[in-house]
Amino acid sequence: MRNIIIGVMGPGENASSEDLKNAYELGQIIAINNWVLLTGGRASGVMDAASRGAKQAGGLTVGILPSTNSQASEAVDIAIVTDLGQARNNINVLSSDVVIACGMGLGTASEVALALKNQKSVILLTTDSISYQFFRSYARDQLFQATTPQETIQLTHKILARLSLFETI
Amino acid sequence: MRNIIIGVMGPGENASSEDLKNAYELGQIIAINNWVLLTGGRASGVMDAASRGAKQAGGLTVGILPSTNSQASEAVDIAIVTDLGQARNNINVLSSDVVIACGMGLGTASEVALALKNQKSVILLTTDSISYQFFRSYARDQLFQATTPQETIQLTHKILARLSLFETI
Amino acid sequence: MRNIIIGVMGPGENASSEDLKNAYELGQIIAINNWVLLTGGRASGVMDAASRGAKQAGGLTVGILPSTNSQASEAVDIAIVTDLGQARNNINVLSSDVVIACGMGLGTASEVALALKNQKSVILLTTDSISYQFFRSYARDQLFQATTPQETIQLTHKILARLSLFETI
Amino acid sequence: MRNIIIGVMGPGENASSEDLKNAYELGQIIAINNWVLLTGGRASGVMDAASRGAKQAGGLTVGILPSTNSQASEAVDIAIVTDLGQARNNINVLSSDVVIACGMGLGTASEVALALKNQKSVILLTTDSISYQFFRSYARDQLFQATTPQETIQLTHKILARLSLFETI
Repeated sequence: MRNIIIGVMGPGENASSEDLKNAYELGQIIAINNWVLLTGGRASGVMDAASRGAKQAGGLTVGILPSTNSQASEAVDIAIVTDLGQARNNINVLSSDVVIACGMGLGTASEVALALKNQKSVILLTTDSISYQFFRSYARDQLFQATTPQETIQLTHKILARLSLFETI
Repeated sequence: MRNIIIGVMGPGENASSEDLKNAYELGQIIAINNWVLLTGGRASGVMDAASRGAKQAGGLTVGILPSTNSQASEAVDIAIVTDLGQARNNINVLSSDVVIACGMGLGTASEVALALKNQKSVILLTTDSISYQFFRSYARDQLFQATTPQETIQLTHKILARLSLFETI
Repeated sequence: MRNIIIGVMGPGENASSEDLKNAYELGQIIAINNWVLLTGGRASGVMDAASRGAKQAGGLTVGILPSTNSQASEAVDIAIVTDLGQARNNINVLSSDVVIACGMGLGTASEVALALKNQKSVILLTTDSISYQFFRSYARDQLFQATTPQETIQLTHKILARLSLFETI
Repeated sequence: MRNIIIGVMGPGENASSEDLKNAYELGQIIAINNWVLLTGGRASGVMDAASRGAKQAGGLTVGILPSTNSQASEAVDIAIVTDLGQARNNINVLSSDVVIACGMGLGTASEVALALKNQKSVILLTTDSISYQFFRSYARDQLFQATTPQETIQLTHKILARLSLFETI
């Protein structure tokens, strides 16, 4: 029985305090749901905060590191070292059953675009309306917006239920 | 003396007729300037049109193919087979001195985001204001917008002059 | 406290019955040592057998899949989908603290070469003398040979002790 | 009409003087045959020598660079920047119609293994019998050995003729 993997993407160095707070809570609730948390793995920003939240709640955390020199978050249990630079962003989204963008930035934007391109469902946890408007032009059905971690996880449950429905049919 | 490489990115299957016309003209002018054209290489949409334009004008064309099964544009001289899927988008932008987005879509959005993330200069050839507004939030200095192929190439000349200035200092 | 990851590489479709038996036992002993097992993830050959052995013994298994179409072994807990084809072999070895080659083939040979190139320690579990002779020409200190799963795990313990020594100094 | 691409792989820092002499001559003859030379692109060893030979004879050279920091050979016309580390080795061989290993080392061994795994024809230009013996165990039909650049190019012609035969049928 394969583990369900929830990817949390978001800014590293430029994360806002709101993003960090949301990421920590997302990590906690993901762990409580017995899902595996997947992030970009570095000891920075949303990746680090989500991993810490998940560890605090007893979860399992996977980090997909860009480089052999990347410093991994201490809260990452399983470090996958890709040495692919930003090309590892495609692995982040392909390996996630649901992709959550917690905040926005250039790396995160590439992940949202790659996820939607690969028919993955994406939830934007943000109050910024432009990013939602931009991505919605290219992928209506798989793109969702939420304003709190709780709402994000409710949407995650719905998406997983829909995915599981497709698999059983 | 390394060749100057200009990357033209844009939709494959969903390119508009305006995008295709612009891509063909971009390819032509790139060739006339003795720059190498780099695209995603497939026999589809903007990649194909830009490559055809460049060949018509006697230029050299490089195509960075996503898969061993991808059908390459007949107008690609040098086919680089990556077998990386969408992760090859990062190579497209890292190998280009200037990145031109001719039209917009999910793959193109990932390329614009990755290019800006890697400090590459990007020109959006589009009348769509949302994409410019979205990316401008994250990278003002390196992002440009143009409405015609001619204007795009004028901007390309300015960017190359600036890059060359940095190298000689 | 990051998990220790032991990579078991080996033939998929062309694995011998000896390779499969060894892989299963390796998986079991790796799990018993509380190490995470990492393989190429597919439902085939050494990857599958090692993962099954580890699951039987209650371990945690990670599979680094080459393609979005790859069928994952049922015994893989955490499936990392790379869509990189054989380029994912570099991730397999970079993510492993110790690399074990259980049997030999072309994919496995690329992994042994990439692991040694990246200064990873590699154990060849094989009675074939040519592969050892070949790789020994290029990397004496990090290359080991074993003839049984038990001997392989003893060597793994020694290598991990040496790595941990380097980290504490 | 796609260009024929001949890949020359071989040691960087540890190339022997014999390897460097052979690589330079290979580059020259590849250019004289109007084939495009593809190498790993760095300003080092066999990559650099082959590129210099090809440029001296007026050829076109492509270099597939591992990192954004890699110093490219001055004799590389078209630099493809992958930022994939050693995972770029798979691109080197997938993009070549024929793969020539000029000398041997760990990176080169990974390229020979990946090339054969991908059904590419490989010529080992070496007097070392172990590497030929090792790889021959896994891929008889596509592996060739030569002792001089001239013999290597004769084999290249035969392989290309065979490939072209398959395509026309």
